[in-house]
Amino acid sequence: MAEMTKSTGLRGQSAGTTELCTVGKSGSGLTYRGYDIQTLAENARFEEVAYLLLKGALPNRSQLDDYIALLQRSRSLPEPLKRVLEQIPSDAHPMDVLRTGTSMLGNLETEQRMEDQQRHADRLLAVTPSMLNYWYRYSHHGERIETETDDVSVGGHFLHLLHGKPASDLHARVMNVSLILYAEHEFNASTFTARVCASTLSDLHSCVTGAIGSLRGPLHGGANEAAMEMISRWSTPDEAERRLLEMLERKEKIMGFGHAIYRESDPRSAIIQQWAKRLADDVGDTHLYAVSERVEAVMKREKKLFPNADFYHASAYHFMGIPTKLFTPIFVCSRLTGWCGHIFEQRANNRIIRPSADYVGPERRDWVPVEQRR
Amino acid sequence: MAEMTKSTGLRGQSAGTTELCTVGKSGSGLTYRGYDIQTLAENARFEEVAYLLLKGALPNRSQLDDYIALLQRSRSLPEPLKRVLEQIPSDAHPMDVLRTGTSMLGNLETEQRMEDQQRHADRLLAVTPSMLNYWYRYSHHGERIETETDDVSVGGHFLHLLHGKPASDLHARVMNVSLILYAEHEFNASTFTARVCASTLSDLHSCVTGAIGSLRGPLHGGANEAAMEMISRWSTPDEAERRLLEMLERKEKIMGFGHAIYRESDPRSAIIQQWAKRLADDVGDTHLYAVSERVEAVMKREKKLFPNADFYHASAYHFMGIPTKLFTPIFVCSRLTGWCGHIFEQRANNRIIRPSADYVGPERRDWVPVEQRR
Repeated sequence: MAEMTKSTGLRGQSAGTTELCTVGKSGSGLTYRGYDIQTLAENARFEEVAYLLLKGALPNRSQLDDYIALLQRSRSLPEPLKRVLEQIPSDAHPMDVLRTGTSMLGNLETEQRMEDQQRHADRLLAVTPSMLNYWYRYSHHGERIETETDDVSVGGHFLHLLHGKPASDLHARVMNVSLILYAEHEFNASTFTARVCASTLSDLHSCVTGAIGSLRGPLHGGANEAAMEMISRWSTPDEAERRLLEMLERKEKIMGFGHAIYRESDPRSAIIQQWAKRLADDVGDTHLYAVSERVEAVMKREKKLFPNADFYHASAYHFMGIPTKLFTPIFVCSRLTGWCGHIFEQRANNRIIRPSADYVGPERRDWVPVEQRR
Repeated sequence: MAEMTKSTGLRGQSAGTTELCTVGKSGSGLTYRGYDIQTLAENARFEEVAYLLLKGALPNRSQLDDYIALLQRSRSLPEPLKRVLEQIPSDAHPMDVLRTGTSMLGNLETEQRMEDQQRHADRLLAVTPSMLNYWYRYSHHGERIETETDDVSVGGHFLHLLHGKPASDLHARVMNVSLILYAEHEFNASTFTARVCASTLSDLHSCVTGAIGSLRGPLHGGANEAAMEMISRWSTPDEAERRLLEMLERKEKIMGFGHAIYRESDPRSAIIQQWAKRLADDVGDTHLYAVSERVEAVMKREKKLFPNADFYHASAYHFMGIPTKLFTPIFVCSRLTGWCGHIFEQRANNRIIRPSADYVGPERRDWVPVEQRR
């Protein structure tokens, strides 16, 4: 048997074209259809960014109003989907819940013609927070919640369903920024999964279901949860520094730092950090934000590594009362927009994605009847 | 906006190494871990081939007996999975049913540690025919079937559940060959989907759920269904020739012919054709097999195209009383073995699969407030 060569993961190889996003073009930037991520985070509604990614341009006032109204009236769950969510146990991985709920929706609202792709994408964007929170509240508290609310924003709707009351303005604003930051990131593994699936001309629900499965992996979507688990173990900045140095000594991986593509910094980190700070002040946090800052300083000093988008998201989400295991599912509620944008692109200029493999297995060999095998 | 370059679909680009399979190495061959497909189809049980693909070598007698017994006792459906399948309407796409059922199983029997991967793969292999046929019989006939049978083979189990009685020896033999032929095919789009998902270190159910979604696409798994729909419209070989020539005149795509990688012939076609012929004789077919042969002859004469694995599968499945819409799901019952073999390989030598994209979108641009947009 030939020796395995190290996997290269297609790094640096182009797998297609996109108009959606640049990542790290000058070493640090991130743009969605030409708009800088900082500009978007400061000025935009997430619903505007979704419109930009899905439909190609920013909406004017009446387009935006119509789009928000459309999303508002698309939040209800079909009864069979509720019954399915009720069958999923409370200890399930919430990403498995979203994967299953999205797949089930594909049985009930099947994409029959590609002309309908926008409608199905809009529906998924509106209904995914409903799916997740319906399951969460039912499995954890036995409540069958009403998922239709009059919240204007996707983020406000999410928090409203989770907590059973409308979100504060501050919380709705932070969710808005967070959803913008996570919306799109070029050919990352979950998006690429969606594009490979789309290249067979499969339906939108199959593509998104596959992408959710890839985002679930700890090398991809799970970093903000892992960061939260780490920082929540430490009560003071000094303790954090001590324990972190021990972890580095043991060569443990520190989640939430560094990035496969960014070299100098992740442009999303400073944005969410500001909001984490405001939330810390707002809730009267005594240590979690300070612990986070110390971890950042130590990682910079010891490893020259910068925090990525996930690191300050951990404390920000925590300050809004979001259970840690729902962090990656929020990523889904946002990244849906990028995934669907890429699915549309793949369909518009398609060839089935079918790479080759280097064979390193045995040469041709003869059959040996079962009784003669050792 | 720059002009789109034509998608290349990573054709001819290596995305990794494999020990599982060679496709078209000398223009026509297909081997699984070094064994020729013809040798396997003549001599092997599908369960032996599954063992070969999943565990690395052919089993000896006691290993094979143990493996068959393991699969036999792994056919039952958990109650919550039955409840989920009962929520799926009868007009759903059966591939959506399998995608949803597999995803649901991942909530109930979650892969917590990669050390358990073999156990989960074996379970999926045993239980997938149960899922599909439980849904089919319930949604179409209102019956809640018992999915545990004492059939020795996966193929026999499938037909038993579908028809409510044990399969004839001939039918069980044909299913055995068919499952062997479809078991593995290198880095095709569904397998590549599974490997991209596996590269994030996600769980087995996510990888397989994603692969099912890709196989659903009409450019990938649906060809035997499309071939069946075509040949079933024609009553005589002469009518078939006439209509087929008209289709070619209109430049319509004829499903079941040609292949992305094979250049001269698909080595699986002659094998399943022989069995289709035997089944035609057995059921006293008066035209369908003859129509198929004529279509093959016309395609060779007019287009120099050969039938691929899917073409004679259509009539073979039809002669065994299998509804056309279950053809692609049978592909899943078989290809599960190849998918899982590739997932294990990816995990054993992993780097996250994250290609680049060529950006062809707008240059950096400034924000325009919503009220100023046209």
